[in-house]
Amino acid sequence: MAYIDLQNDLPGIRGPMAYRPDTGRALNVLAELLLHDDANTLSRGERELIGAYVSSENDCFFCQNVHGALAQHYFGWDMPFLDSIKKDYLSAPIPDKLKSLLSIAGSVRKGGKYVTSEQIAHAKRLGATDREIHDTVLIAAAFCMFNRYVDGLNTWAPQDRQVYVDRASMRAKDGYADMNLYK
Amino acid sequence: MAYIDLQNDLPGIRGPMAYRPDTGRALNVLAELLLHDDANTLSRGERELIGAYVSSENDCFFCQNVHGALAQHYFGWDMPFLDSIKKDYLSAPIPDKLKSLLSIAGSVRKGGKYVTSEQIAHAKRLGATDREIHDTVLIAAAFCMFNRYVDGLNTWAPQDRQVYVDRASMRAKDGYADMNLYK
Repeated sequence: MAYIDLQNDLPGIRGPMAYRPDTGRALNVLAELLLHDDANTLSRGERELIGAYVSSENDCFFCQNVHGALAQHYFGWDMPFLDSIKKDYLSAPIPDKLKSLLSIAGSVRKGGKYVTSEQIAHAKRLGATDREIHDTVLIAAAFCMFNRYVDGLNTWAPQDRQVYVDRASMRAKDGYADMNLYK
Repeated sequence: MAYIDLQNDLPGIRGPMAYRPDTGRALNVLAELLLHDDANTLSRGERELIGAYVSSENDCFFCQNVHGALAQHYFGWDMPFLDSIKKDYLSAPIPDKLKSLLSIAGSVRKGGKYVTSEQIAHAKRLGATDREIHDTVLIAAAFCMFNRYVDGLNTWAPQDRQVYVDRASMRAKDGYADMNLYK
């Protein structure tokens, strides 16, 4: 049960977002720009995977399942494959460039100063652009916020992981925020 | 020097915010709502202090000085007094309720699951409302993002702490975002 009376029964981050809608909207606008907006050379799947990976390392059940299901949806992966990436992405059959970005995201998760110039140089050698590195850092940083918002208030989450898989296509279609309202 | 070419010479978070202005604006809207908006029973000074404390624990020089200077500005404190709070807030002559919120913020910084029901109950006994606890958790979580954005990209920051003090009154007046543009 959440530590405060959220005045709604919504799961995960949706509870506190509805409790304070103005900050909820700002968070959703940020998620839309980082994860769903198509003006990006990183695919939606790659960006959702970065968020799911950071959430997994932060042990946030709600976020890792919401965004893991979205990564599955975009890539056409099943749950065991996604789980194998979260467990050991270096051994997974995914592109080396994506691995280099997950490495940067993992360091950001620990703290900004854990990122090294060697990690950045490695990602650039594998073809990562400045903008892709920027977005990787900000996505990882943003999930450090989302995860803490969800668990710091002790929100509840559906335990059946299939629930998240079933919702992913709707979220992929609708995105996180109606940007027509954000001028 | 920043790990990527930010195409500007702005210090701290202002560099990557100008590099990607759409996400920069979303971050500034969030900061405005959490820290500057006056529709809050926590004072601006209390909210800036929470941000400065989390940034100090995360060892983010830029953020702890920007927001520490703002806390000083609102409270009328000098730098040694602010530093004494960052170093040992439990021994500082500040209200017990504020100490209980700093304790929650410190746990959020480590990770959402570090917050305990005992910390929440203690804050509530000292008069903290649900909304104040909500905002404390989200402010602390947001600074875990801001700090990682600043240091994960290795941005530069003025080393003379007086620079931050001198800018604080302007920031207090202008806030973080023009909310008239955010409908």
